[in-house]
Amino acid sequence: MIIAVDAMGGDYAPKEIIAGAIDAKEKLKIHICLVGQSDIINEHLHEIGIKEGIQVVHASEVIGMDEHPGTAIRRKKDSSIVVATRLVKEKKADAVVSAGSTGAQMAAALFGLGRIKEVERPAIVTVLPAKTGRVVLLDAGANADSKPKHLVQFAKMGSIYAEKILSFSNPKVALLNIGAEETKGNELTIESYKLLQDDVNINFLGNIEGRDLLEGHADVIVCDGFVGNVVLKFAEGLAGTMFSLIKEELEKSLPRKVGALLAMPAFKAIKQKLDYNEYGGAPLLGIDGVSIICHGSSKAKAITNAVAVAKQCVESDLIGKIKEAI
Amino acid sequence: MIIAVDAMGGDYAPKEIIAGAIDAKEKLKIHICLVGQSDIINEHLHEIGIKEGIQVVHASEVIGMDEHPGTAIRRKKDSSIVVATRLVKEKKADAVVSAGSTGAQMAAALFGLGRIKEVERPAIVTVLPAKTGRVVLLDAGANADSKPKHLVQFAKMGSIYAEKILSFSNPKVALLNIGAEETKGNELTIESYKLLQDDVNINFLGNIEGRDLLEGHADVIVCDGFVGNVVLKFAEGLAGTMFSLIKEELEKSLPRKVGALLAMPAFKAIKQKLDYNEYGGAPLLGIDGVSIICHGSSKAKAITNAVAVAKQCVESDLIGKIKEAI
Repeated sequence: MIIAVDAMGGDYAPKEIIAGAIDAKEKLKIHICLVGQSDIINEHLHEIGIKEGIQVVHASEVIGMDEHPGTAIRRKKDSSIVVATRLVKEKKADAVVSAGSTGAQMAAALFGLGRIKEVERPAIVTVLPAKTGRVVLLDAGANADSKPKHLVQFAKMGSIYAEKILSFSNPKVALLNIGAEETKGNELTIESYKLLQDDVNINFLGNIEGRDLLEGHADVIVCDGFVGNVVLKFAEGLAGTMFSLIKEELEKSLPRKVGALLAMPAFKAIKQKLDYNEYGGAPLLGIDGVSIICHGSSKAKAITNAVAVAKQCVESDLIGKIKEAI
Repeated sequence: MIIAVDAMGGDYAPKEIIAGAIDAKEKLKIHICLVGQSDIINEHLHEIGIKEGIQVVHASEVIGMDEHPGTAIRRKKDSSIVVATRLVKEKKADAVVSAGSTGAQMAAALFGLGRIKEVERPAIVTVLPAKTGRVVLLDAGANADSKPKHLVQFAKMGSIYAEKILSFSNPKVALLNIGAEETKGNELTIESYKLLQDDVNINFLGNIEGRDLLEGHADVIVCDGFVGNVVLKFAEGLAGTMFSLIKEELEKSLPRKVGALLAMPAFKAIKQKLDYNEYGGAPLLGIDGVSIICHGSSKAKAITNAVAVAKQCVESDLIGKIKEAI
């Protein structure tokens, strides 16, 4: 199995990306193909003493985080994400992993690999830490405006992902809404509720409110990409705000400082639980090929874990399973 | 000044509501009118040794948290929230405060007091703790589907509230969105951006993403009621989850327990900072009268603070100021 890794994408590219990819190669017994500016990649490989066993594919351009995805993909045909995605299309790689611009990766996947037939809107899936383990949320931002039938497809694709990759059995699906009752919500959720309930292939629990999102009652939570993106980014912001509040308060007196030192392992355990580096990455669902999205701030560990997710997606034939279900 | 307090609304009604209202009467030098089942209210007053100085207005019915707001308001004409709101309409009270069903309070306000002319959609405003102090978010759930022109009105009403009640000078307004650029977002936010930018009476900063919501860059953040409600409830859930994670981890070993004891004042300070009881309540904006919404879990302190907010709204002529601005 060959996993193409976009060496140029992400806040810590290329160093952490390369380190994570090499680690994955050794741990997972797979082949890695690093895609990006070859002189830079080779220099890094040289520095860490890697002389062979890693394939490097040159791509002269890099797409920045702020570039318009569609435009960037069209203009920069020799960018690392476009070239890496093309390797999958041409069956020179089994999957692509990137921590670069999510929008550009989605655009590259849409143009390069295409949608699975019948899937109208591919979605970005995200894995959040819940009280009982993990919860899958989608769409996390691929589609700013969604229709009820799209949410039904998100539910199906999310369920397959939860089952095949996260080992949930018969995953429970909930609709993110502003009330528990069937009649609550906006036009989109009221209509989506009916469709989700009527679909025998979806293990639909009903509505879930914002406050229960991380309780673990549901395994897969569907919402439109606008709401999903706001919630996801807000969670990151709020967790950060709370940790900085805690830090600030703990530094205010000597007893508090001593207490903080003693309690430090507890905080480390929590940070680890909330750390996206532990989850690595998640596939773009609905794309006809495996393209794993990583957080922009991914370090080596996240990339290693993301490559492991890519391997799982390929081995479990995630794409084939989605094709069957939709 | 007379503030009507719905003695029957909220998780801790009537005990905590009555206690908070009495405290407010003493601290704020105002008159309180407790509305609800008079035998129960009088029994509570008797228990805490209050014999005079508190007016009690009887209302035989109570609207539960799960009842459909519109239906409940029509059927239960002698419910505490309907009667308390009527006191304001009849100028027998200057404002109403309730911790009962938000939907029922909104419905009672719409039917009893009406909208301010020109305000198409009244909004629920909420005050969140931000890094730099406080941030105002609206709509927090009154309108599941909003139009761009509604968001413009939310911006104006939120600005006046922030200025008159929270003492922000020339409050900065931001639009909650999924990207910083003007072209990012869904149909609603892309269109709203233009209107907000073109309105010379709004101090518009631009878009704000979920992760920056609590950073304090903006003072007033506008969004549709669906997104606002999800974010608000998610914030409550996430803060709760984090505290229970911290507690769980801190109980795992003796050094951690000792550390937790020493650091306890820090945690208390944070809990206080995040505690909605500190903020009390916020007015329904766009209603032609002062109706203060409190959190369902409000205890005495929250009610006291909410009555203080009611007093401020009356004294600063919030309704008159909104009428001028819209």
